[in-house]
Amino acid sequence: MKRRVFSGSRPTGRQHLGNYLGAIQNYVNLQDEYACIYCIVDVHALTSLEDTGSLQKNIYDMMLDWLAAGLDPRKSILFVQSRVPEVMELHTLLSMVTPLSWLLRVPTFKEKVKLQPHNVNYGLVGYPVLMTADIVLYKGEVVPVGEDQLPHLELAREIARRFNNLFGQTFPEPEAKLTSFPLVLGLDGKEKMSKQLGNDIELALSPQETIERVMTAVTDPARRYRDDPGHPEICNIYQLQRYFNPLQSDSIAEQCRSANIGCVDCKTLLAEEINSTLGPFRERRAVLATKPQYVAEVLADGAERARVIARETLREVKQKMGLL
Amino acid sequence: MKRRVFSGSRPTGRQHLGNYLGAIQNYVNLQDEYACIYCIVDVHALTSLEDTGSLQKNIYDMMLDWLAAGLDPRKSILFVQSRVPEVMELHTLLSMVTPLSWLLRVPTFKEKVKLQPHNVNYGLVGYPVLMTADIVLYKGEVVPVGEDQLPHLELAREIARRFNNLFGQTFPEPEAKLTSFPLVLGLDGKEKMSKQLGNDIELALSPQETIERVMTAVTDPARRYRDDPGHPEICNIYQLQRYFNPLQSDSIAEQCRSANIGCVDCKTLLAEEINSTLGPFRERRAVLATKPQYVAEVLADGAERARVIARETLREVKQKMGLL
Repeated sequence: MKRRVFSGSRPTGRQHLGNYLGAIQNYVNLQDEYACIYCIVDVHALTSLEDTGSLQKNIYDMMLDWLAAGLDPRKSILFVQSRVPEVMELHTLLSMVTPLSWLLRVPTFKEKVKLQPHNVNYGLVGYPVLMTADIVLYKGEVVPVGEDQLPHLELAREIARRFNNLFGQTFPEPEAKLTSFPLVLGLDGKEKMSKQLGNDIELALSPQETIERVMTAVTDPARRYRDDPGHPEICNIYQLQRYFNPLQSDSIAEQCRSANIGCVDCKTLLAEEINSTLGPFRERRAVLATKPQYVAEVLADGAERARVIARETLREVKQKMGLL
Repeated sequence: MKRRVFSGSRPTGRQHLGNYLGAIQNYVNLQDEYACIYCIVDVHALTSLEDTGSLQKNIYDMMLDWLAAGLDPRKSILFVQSRVPEVMELHTLLSMVTPLSWLLRVPTFKEKVKLQPHNVNYGLVGYPVLMTADIVLYKGEVVPVGEDQLPHLELAREIARRFNNLFGQTFPEPEAKLTSFPLVLGLDGKEKMSKQLGNDIELALSPQETIERVMTAVTDPARRYRDDPGHPEICNIYQLQRYFNPLQSDSIAEQCRSANIGCVDCKTLLAEEINSTLGPFRERRAVLATKPQYVAEVLADGAERARVIARETLREVKQKMGLL
């Protein structure tokens, strides 16, 4: 029996290089070793998204990218969170065993309160409870997380443990599979690549659009003229060269330091490599985009398979809590 | 079209005189004028009940009393909250539009924190959100409440209004139907009659048990001897005489004040009247108790009818929130 991996991602629409290098490649790689469940968490999106008009389009665009990138519905369960409403039931039931104090001390909650002080909802406090429900509903054993998510996973383990203590062994305590998500900087060279900040390069751009996007990137700010020597170690574009052009990256660094290569040439090289790496992805994506019905079917089938597990868990939970 | 009444009661098991005079009689009376939905709220019970082993028995006993008292499944929808899991979905969705600050300022929350400081769960804070979900899931228009419940209902109205503002008119704002629940004191003459305090008289006692229970009641503490004049206005038993023996109560008061009647005689009179009032209830209850399957069928049928409404509401809610 393969161990069960669960991971959820917010529906952010078309995916960018940061998503690809960070999450998607990892998701694809885990599919053979584990029984993977990958979920687009639309209910989580409601904790901070006030305008929900684009949710459905974002879900579709994201799933299109996931499928084109190699997430395989024959290997993994791919679905949208709210289509398995049992997760909201479990969220409500777990809320009864989760001390409020545990939630108020979560660092990301404190940050969110600063970010959206006008919109501190009950559901925002409960974010880790819903995340716990996501994982334990499927008895997820392994959760790929970045370091910033470790406190949430620790809380999920505590909630699972508390439920087990109160009502008998029910949930495995999910283990973190620490993943070194590379911090991919955005085109501004300052912030993490993010759709919201508009500093991203979408996977699904055309080759020409990709070149244009790359050209807008901030590079080494100390290299003001073509003849100034560069500092690849602090250059945004050089970071991407290492991922997309690993064989040439050492030589590019050298040429940059000696001002033998200019930023425009360097960017051109990078854009070509990105385009060549993403070529097969884009071809698959173009084909999939002609079959929107297929994406809908994958999601419906995924939800159905997820629900079989979810219903079973929920029956067990309700029985143990005395509700059945 | 009759307006829709919703009311929920915690599963407290066999009902007592306080429940009868307070809630049940009122429930029965509303059945003709309104389309009533009466719910045994087992999920709410989880917010404070750590040992849930008796939940199912309590639900059965309570429903037996309700049915025997005249709640009629042909007129009203009678069901158990968790059997319509949509309410937990709606609770989760409404949690996204409910500011945490609204919940933390609820007076009953502050009281509960004092009562169970070791067990302040996330779900306890969310009690009014779940109560709102209970009501608006069925688009309840009228909610019979005592004065102490008014702050909760005001919060339910605010949450409904906020949802309507954010996502378009969806829920009626439920109106309070203020009910003068008589404060029925327990046998100790001090606290409200309550199963938990053990100062109650259960409806389903036998006539003999009722007499014995009544005999244990504290009466006017100033009347120490049979010849001391009594003070019916402060006497626990006299309060019950007014409900169960209204025709004789004036004359009993007089005889008490003049010490013409002793407490034992007075209690005997009261117990007889209680037994005579509850006679038909007890007969019906005895018949129903021979058909446990009937109670189960009533609850299954009620849940099915409630779910038809619930599914419809939830589809509308999800569509408006962008989840469909």
